[in-house]
Amino acid sequence: MIPSIEWVDEENKVKMIDQTLLPHELKFLEFEDYREVANSITVMNIRGAPAIGAAASMAMALATLEYKDLSKDEFLEKMNEAANHMRKARPTASNLFWAVNRMMKIIENSNGSPSEISEEIVEEAKLVAQEDVNVNKSIGKHGAEILADGDTVLTHCNAGSLATVQYGTALAPVRAAIEQRKKISVVADETRPRLQGARLTAYECQYDKIPVKVCADNSSGLLMKLGKIDKVIVGTDRVSSDAVFNKIGTYLVALAAKDNNIPFYVACPRSTLSLKDTIDDVEIEQRDSGEVSKILGKVQVTPEGVECLNYAFDITPFRLVTGIITEDGVFTPEEMLKKYKE
Amino acid sequence: MIPSIEWVDEENKVKMIDQTLLPHELKFLEFEDYREVANSITVMNIRGAPAIGAAASMAMALATLEYKDLSKDEFLEKMNEAANHMRKARPTASNLFWAVNRMMKIIENSNGSPSEISEEIVEEAKLVAQEDVNVNKSIGKHGAEILADGDTVLTHCNAGSLATVQYGTALAPVRAAIEQRKKISVVADETRPRLQGARLTAYECQYDKIPVKVCADNSSGLLMKLGKIDKVIVGTDRVSSDAVFNKIGTYLVALAAKDNNIPFYVACPRSTLSLKDTIDDVEIEQRDSGEVSKILGKVQVTPEGVECLNYAFDITPFRLVTGIITEDGVFTPEEMLKKYKE
Repeated sequence: MIPSIEWVDEENKVKMIDQTLLPHELKFLEFEDYREVANSITVMNIRGAPAIGAAASMAMALATLEYKDLSKDEFLEKMNEAANHMRKARPTASNLFWAVNRMMKIIENSNGSPSEISEEIVEEAKLVAQEDVNVNKSIGKHGAEILADGDTVLTHCNAGSLATVQYGTALAPVRAAIEQRKKISVVADETRPRLQGARLTAYECQYDKIPVKVCADNSSGLLMKLGKIDKVIVGTDRVSSDAVFNKIGTYLVALAAKDNNIPFYVACPRSTLSLKDTIDDVEIEQRDSGEVSKILGKVQVTPEGVECLNYAFDITPFRLVTGIITEDGVFTPEEMLKKYKE
Repeated sequence: MIPSIEWVDEENKVKMIDQTLLPHELKFLEFEDYREVANSITVMNIRGAPAIGAAASMAMALATLEYKDLSKDEFLEKMNEAANHMRKARPTASNLFWAVNRMMKIIENSNGSPSEISEEIVEEAKLVAQEDVNVNKSIGKHGAEILADGDTVLTHCNAGSLATVQYGTALAPVRAAIEQRKKISVVADETRPRLQGARLTAYECQYDKIPVKVCADNSSGLLMKLGKIDKVIVGTDRVSSDAVFNKIGTYLVALAAKDNNIPFYVACPRSTLSLKDTIDDVEIEQRDSGEVSKILGKVQVTPEGVECLNYAFDITPFRLVTGIITEDGVFTPEEMLKKYKE
């Protein structure tokens, strides 16, 4: 398994997989300028909430290295500039803001010289990445307990290693179960319109020798009916007090799982819980019609002039969710609320 | 609305839309040789069960014209050859066999000369096409009654004019309601892997000025939840005594409709009823992995070496079906069984 992003200590560089070229080419990008990292987030060389958080942290570390020889006042001014630049890279990515703010807080509260602060921020950026891997491994450990030897797991979109720094969320239980020598295979929904399942989940499973097949999103129901799926595990972008928000299509998968008595699990780091929200607080992002009408920007499918509806996320109510897997364990939605809701 | 296929009387020709070029180009093919019609079915210039039935009938008419100056014995021999050739055009299309057999029965039972038989078969082929249009218009008339002014109808795949000779099955109620001056709009599931919804349903709606939007298959659940869909109408390939068989993805749409209290209707000519069958009698066709992995044969999406599951049809149990619309009326599944099952 390749880290989607890492800090190269010897050279003070950020190294990441260019995910826009997957699955056809594995190419690494190396950046020494934080502005290039911002751009890599904008053009989606890197995607997935935790991976974006790590990238933004490392970008801030690059900025401190660029400005560490300035006076403290000039340094603080330049770091504020860098923070603002980073925040504009992908305004809908909440982990981007979280990471930039985490770094700025340290910078603003430090009494050290710019050079000392820079050392501290480089360590902090590496810590952000390491924390993500630790959380994912804990999710894997707990999630592996619900997987039986021989299970086939359906997943939707990519909540794998490529969406995180490494190891993944929804794929973490699969990896952990395989490490325990259970035989597990994966069915990946292709996940229209951007096809992250067909491209990324298929790629990383194949790379790590996890048996994987791809299916069109609309066939998950039949596959369950035919007995070809044992468990469903998906990731999530946000969990409110009543529903799971995840990639469009998740709700249909959950309905089919319920109708076929197949357990439906959501892998969710604590940091993704947003339990003060309810369904009504969350606005579903509508994206460009062209993502649907022109596949991967290459093949125009619909007639000119016909609009496509392109909602990015789906709402899956708790009544369809068997369990939520966090770094602390596997919980029913009710248990999860009891544990985490103040 | 353009007929997908027609017989050109003055020239004894078959004229059809080349559906492989839609929605980007509207081109007509004209054939005087039955072998060319067989090929057009094989390469899917024409598709949809009723349209294939009409094409096969007209191909047999072309064959009679080719051989009408032979002796009766030679004529019969050549017509048997033609029938066998046609049956091989697309072996899974039941309407193909039905149409060829209907023509051969007339040919074999006739006392007329080859030339007289040819005239009879040309008329019969035109009748097959006309019968289809009549059935569809009856489905439209009955189906229009369930549509209210202002409704948005979700449909899956293409069961429109292009799948039939003209007018369509699932789209017939929409057309009829609009003829009654109701305001109706359509949301077309794109229908992976072959994208008949995005390509064909969108095309024929746009052509006929029926308001239409396209969505990725995995968004129908959210659209229903957001109140953007009032009714679902789909076509069907076969109705057994316990389920509706239709394009893969239909079951998920039906589950979402049920969960959101949205009526789910199936437009079904009597000829598509197969009430002696049950779910267990029907084997689901598995098609080539490449239809999913390489979109429209143009864009490779998955990594090399990853297999795609590609089941062509879905099983929707009667408990999810609000009504079945035939040329005789709108029936609950129970009423339909009572009416049509001997």
